[in-house]
Amino acid sequence: MNARVDRLRESLEEPLLVTNPTNVTYLSGFKSSNAALLVEPDAVRLFTDFRYAEAARAVEGVQFEETKRGLLVDLAGRLSGPVGFEADYMSYAGWEMLGSGSVEPVQRRGLVERLRAVKDEQELATIRQACAITDRMFERLTEATFVGRTELDVAWQIGELFHEEGGEPAFESIVASGANGARPHARAGSRKIRAGETVVIDTGCTVDGYTSDYTRTLATGPLDDEVKSAYAVVLAAQQAGLETIRAGLAGVDADAAARGVVDATEFAGMFGHGLGHGLGLEVHEAPRMSTESTDTLATGNVVTVEPGIYLEGRAGIRIEDDVAVTDDGIDNFTGFRKDLITVG
Amino acid sequence: MNARVDRLRESLEEPLLVTNPTNVTYLSGFKSSNAALLVEPDAVRLFTDFRYAEAARAVEGVQFEETKRGLLVDLAGRLSGPVGFEADYMSYAGWEMLGSGSVEPVQRRGLVERLRAVKDEQELATIRQACAITDRMFERLTEATFVGRTELDVAWQIGELFHEEGGEPAFESIVASGANGARPHARAGSRKIRAGETVVIDTGCTVDGYTSDYTRTLATGPLDDEVKSAYAVVLAAQQAGLETIRAGLAGVDADAAARGVVDATEFAGMFGHGLGHGLGLEVHEAPRMSTESTDTLATGNVVTVEPGIYLEGRAGIRIEDDVAVTDDGIDNFTGFRKDLITVG
Repeated sequence: MNARVDRLRESLEEPLLVTNPTNVTYLSGFKSSNAALLVEPDAVRLFTDFRYAEAARAVEGVQFEETKRGLLVDLAGRLSGPVGFEADYMSYAGWEMLGSGSVEPVQRRGLVERLRAVKDEQELATIRQACAITDRMFERLTEATFVGRTELDVAWQIGELFHEEGGEPAFESIVASGANGARPHARAGSRKIRAGETVVIDTGCTVDGYTSDYTRTLATGPLDDEVKSAYAVVLAAQQAGLETIRAGLAGVDADAAARGVVDATEFAGMFGHGLGHGLGLEVHEAPRMSTESTDTLATGNVVTVEPGIYLEGRAGIRIEDDVAVTDDGIDNFTGFRKDLITVG
Repeated sequence: MNARVDRLRESLEEPLLVTNPTNVTYLSGFKSSNAALLVEPDAVRLFTDFRYAEAARAVEGVQFEETKRGLLVDLAGRLSGPVGFEADYMSYAGWEMLGSGSVEPVQRRGLVERLRAVKDEQELATIRQACAITDRMFERLTEATFVGRTELDVAWQIGELFHEEGGEPAFESIVASGANGARPHARAGSRKIRAGETVVIDTGCTVDGYTSDYTRTLATGPLDDEVKSAYAVVLAAQQAGLETIRAGLAGVDADAAARGVVDATEFAGMFGHGLGHGLGLEVHEAPRMSTESTDTLATGNVVTVEPGIYLEGRAGIRIEDDVAVTDDGIDNFTGFRKDLITVG
């Protein structure tokens, strides 16, 4: 069928039933909320219900079989023998359903995700394009006035700018001003941005299904010395991470390179999340760089590098680039500046 | 803690670990992609990692416990004894993880979803508000010219109009022109809309987390007799559904009332999906009305009523309203007209 399916087959001990919709899209190009691919040694069968049937018939290199809306019940009656399933994705109830007939479900983990983590030239070019759009979005966004506007209003403008530049918003933007920034996953809210505080902006766009994911922290006027100092430490920590990352490095060691910079300062312990994550068809995918990671970086990975410092009740600072991992380092797709920008 | 938790406790035989993020939000108001609530007889414990810790501390009526990023591994070491889990949501791998310590996982299904299906006054008012915004969006949208624009351009305009009217787009709008309309779940694409065809627009907005979900089918000029006839049949089928729906009716019977109208015509068999689905914090939730449904409608349900006819390779027609189920019928929240509108 295609090179991706061929690579997948090399790791299979039995036919694999792919039910994660992103993995279905990756392998076949087909998009649906209710579809499955069965990758067998000599064939790929695509299952979906009536609603997606016409589109499914147009997919090349697969044998399409229309199922009932209850996909797994249908497959339980249609398939038999050992069938691998995606244990990180399929629900417990789904697993029980799949095994209710003559299928012997075999749990498999991360088989397609492992392939997706290594991008091909086309994928790298698409992510680079999403990053170029994100650069232009930030250039235009930082020309605007922030003080007096709500976080939600800024978030809406981000979406409009992405659209004008040729991307679509990839996820709900974080616009976290003042003390809201101390929550790493704050959303944009109705708080009005004030002068003399930080605004954490974490956003990204999608181009042909592939995403960017940037964070910049802006100032809306002079900041106190502690916050300025925290900004400098985050920037230095990111730089340490960027200089360390290369193929063959363990995710835990990449994380440690940046974390060590923060932990050697008065802000020790305030970098409360991992250094970064893979990026592609999903905003969060393999590999991970964190204190709990078991991944090793490989050429062709695209990862975020995003240390932060969170001062509870006061402010947050995070700086995030998107980089491709290469044999001897990185290719940083992120062009937008990261010195402390003051906006009005 | 609150009435919702109290109602949930009535159905519990052991503590329930709620991991579906929408259910966590419904019960506690807390939003996170990595959180769990343990509902015990005398307490509710909220678990999440550092990133959401500051927000979690502000949640009333729960005991917050900060966990590692690997939430289920952490809980496997922290909890013990029989613990119910949401088998429709938790992955097979998550179930295995949860049971790796001294927890005895007990599969439970739909306990919170069953509560969510019956809306309280506040929820009904919020959905009604989302519907009023959707009415205004459609009023303004249908004043625009369609011919010559791409589907994606129309989809973008829908988002802008929602935003201007006070809602946010709830999902990726379907704008399916001409033959694209024959795919019930087509997305908006780069196809340019032509004169004399149908355009299926399936869209909705979110207000305070609650969604609307409407479909209207527009004409861009005179349609041929078969398509006009299909439109009239869909409208009649919807009317039959709307007149039949009331508390106590089985979902399968609601579906049959509308389906019977289609199947008595030359379009028999071309209504290839269910009549509708519940609507609330999610765009698709309980109860379902379809040929496979096992649900029974109850007062306080909010459901879509959306028959369709799909003429492969030519056109699609779908008309969808959002209605609240009452003791003796429905309260239709949808104000926008549904005669065949011709746009330029």
